[in-house]
Amino acid sequence: MSAVLETDDVSESAVPGLRTIKVGLLGLGQVGQAVARIAPEAARLKHAGLRFRITGALVRDVNKVRRCQKPRVTSNPSAFLRGNYDVVIEALSNVEPAHGIVRRLLGRGVPVVTANKALVATHGLELAALAIRRGTTLRYEASALAGVPFLGAFAARPLVSDVHRLTAVVNGTSNFILSKLEREQCTFDAALEDARRLGLTEPDATRDVSGQDSADKLTLLAAIFGWGTVPAFRISTQSIHGLSARDFAIARSLTSTIKPLVFAKRTAAGISAFVGPAVLPQEHPLASLVGALSGIHLSGSFISDLFFSGPGAGPDITAATLLDDAVEALCTHTARPGRAVVPTPHVATIASAPTTGWLVRTTFPGVVPQAATVEQLFSTHHLTTTHVSDAIDNQRWVRLAPLTSEALDFALNRIAATHRIQTFAIRALQE
Amino acid sequence: MSAVLETDDVSESAVPGLRTIKVGLLGLGQVGQAVARIAPEAARLKHAGLRFRITGALVRDVNKVRRCQKPRVTSNPSAFLRGNYDVVIEALSNVEPAHGIVRRLLGRGVPVVTANKALVATHGLELAALAIRRGTTLRYEASALAGVPFLGAFAARPLVSDVHRLTAVVNGTSNFILSKLEREQCTFDAALEDARRLGLTEPDATRDVSGQDSADKLTLLAAIFGWGTVPAFRISTQSIHGLSARDFAIARSLTSTIKPLVFAKRTAAGISAFVGPAVLPQEHPLASLVGALSGIHLSGSFISDLFFSGPGAGPDITAATLLDDAVEALCTHTARPGRAVVPTPHVATIASAPTTGWLVRTTFPGVVPQAATVEQLFSTHHLTTTHVSDAIDNQRWVRLAPLTSEALDFALNRIAATHRIQTFAIRALQE
Repeated sequence: MSAVLETDDVSESAVPGLRTIKVGLLGLGQVGQAVARIAPEAARLKHAGLRFRITGALVRDVNKVRRCQKPRVTSNPSAFLRGNYDVVIEALSNVEPAHGIVRRLLGRGVPVVTANKALVATHGLELAALAIRRGTTLRYEASALAGVPFLGAFAARPLVSDVHRLTAVVNGTSNFILSKLEREQCTFDAALEDARRLGLTEPDATRDVSGQDSADKLTLLAAIFGWGTVPAFRISTQSIHGLSARDFAIARSLTSTIKPLVFAKRTAAGISAFVGPAVLPQEHPLASLVGALSGIHLSGSFISDLFFSGPGAGPDITAATLLDDAVEALCTHTARPGRAVVPTPHVATIASAPTTGWLVRTTFPGVVPQAATVEQLFSTHHLTTTHVSDAIDNQRWVRLAPLTSEALDFALNRIAATHRIQTFAIRALQE
Repeated sequence: MSAVLETDDVSESAVPGLRTIKVGLLGLGQVGQAVARIAPEAARLKHAGLRFRITGALVRDVNKVRRCQKPRVTSNPSAFLRGNYDVVIEALSNVEPAHGIVRRLLGRGVPVVTANKALVATHGLELAALAIRRGTTLRYEASALAGVPFLGAFAARPLVSDVHRLTAVVNGTSNFILSKLEREQCTFDAALEDARRLGLTEPDATRDVSGQDSADKLTLLAAIFGWGTVPAFRISTQSIHGLSARDFAIARSLTSTIKPLVFAKRTAAGISAFVGPAVLPQEHPLASLVGALSGIHLSGSFISDLFFSGPGAGPDITAATLLDDAVEALCTHTARPGRAVVPTPHVATIASAPTTGWLVRTTFPGVVPQAATVEQLFSTHHLTTTHVSDAIDNQRWVRLAPLTSEALDFALNRIAATHRIQTFAIRALQE
């Protein structure tokens, strides 16, 4: 059986009942190699009547050694595009050259499935519209919460996708780092190094840690929910860098935890959103997600309290989702009207970031003042304190009632200038 | 605009860009009425390019007063079947007459969407195969976790649906009752009465409370995961009736709670499953689901720790899901090969129910013995005790190490016969 599978020119009829699928693979990095390993093996695909064969792959370096049986590879996009594919799996990580190649493929009617969130966030609406015009399919289930199949349903179902509020952990790497800080009381850099060693980060982890990756995913989700184009650079984004094990200990004493959050709501004034670390009560469904798990909590006009979670990162998981997308692309066909699937592109109105509570790590230059004194100091600067922690060394943590980040920054800058008190503020959600 | 929507013979071209969808409605109970209310109103459906018109409904009693604009109704199935529908929404609650009518409709190529779990559990595979043969669609997203769109993805995606273990709360009504017992310390009957008053139960709540409804949903899930036919009557099923507020207080003291559970795993020996109340640690994702929420936790060959939750019951939620199913049925076509969608029908091997821990409520006829004495008594009957609770009146709760229900029943019967000690055993899961 395996010999038959590897022969080059087996016609469809040679393996009765199995339809041979010619797959083009864009990229042979971690994810691409996992696709090349799983695709010819998975019994479930054969059970679905399909036999996947990688007939060509586009790579940067044709000579690199790879942990999979190497398909015919080329580093020349034009040579790759001369191939004949039933479906193309896109596992590159940047917008270019992916965008140009995917556009060519869809324009030619070839279905494409992708895990590239930067591509989908930037050009998703344009590419999806192109796919519909050419009677083909673009699927991108692996581009957010890689292991959790939910985007497809939201893209195709108009009532449930009428979402007006989302709270999510969409960057598994950041969640892994913060979970490690919380559990092992290690330093931020040690946690990051561990994530890198386990292959959870890209070579450059900046996009994960800074929140850029999460902001890209919010752009993508906003498009699916029909909110319009929410440019990632317009979203208030705070890095998780700078969090310490002590912040988690304080959060725990408030029966809370800190998660790398994406929050967005659609109001009459526009989209109000932020990306960054946030204190969450322990009973919040996202609070229980530890390690590299990701999750999303949604409320909308028809259905509220929806929650989806699962593995958010990892080459094998992403590869499995890409292959499932390929099956869906091959086995289902979207007919017009496709407006359920392609929300009208329009630029969303961006409102100011939401007013939330805050947890402020406060570092004093000398002797730590009494809690009441701290409360009074903050009150002088129009900050309403709801809790002041015990002192640890020269630090206290101050919980503040909801206010805008502008008002907070203004007050904290004045406190710093007047009293040489350093602060580090983390948002805090009540529900 | 509303006048136009109600005119009878508007052709598709009369409202530019909107395709008029002729909907047949089977049943005008709570769910049917909600469909009739939402369908003509929802702006999201128009945005998807669709204008829904209920052109006929089958009801038991044509004269009954209903909380919706009444469509043309008939109580005669043949008269209903003479109608011309783009899609039929099935909102009856029993297997018959739904089965015969749905078979006729699919046989004629009319897409059907259903919320009827009894129908899908009993005839789902046969009807799905018929739909494929006739080039049409059967969708049943509302038949389990009514408000959570996840079944569609599992039916269409072979790798993620390679599930070998599931733990779920699939009956929102039971979860509502147990949550109320836990929070308000009321009696079981008071909690049940409250669920009834809120319209969460059917007129006869027996199917909810007994676990039959959950067992039907397990049958349905097993089919989607390719486990074959798991007849509901073959599943070890325990009613939630008999649980008391005290059981929850004891569970809480063990940092656990009790949930109306469905558990199943696929092993080399066959499908091992149970339906019934079970003690779960508080950090389990299902433990946080309160009220009428439902949820499912899945692990499989390619992706583990998947979790989906959301509203599991309620007419408006079910109606929204049925309408989303109708949009998917109208906008997508499943092409061959359809084996990803229609698992081969085969009868599954049923293995014995899983070996689990237990929490045994133990009622003594006279003076309550010391904890050590209770432990010794249980040990005499080959039961390994891991914890004995403090006494409350004449009761103690005994936590037992994993064993089969047969071994447990044998021992508890002997204890009852010899010592006149009454027991009530609840399963306890470790993870």
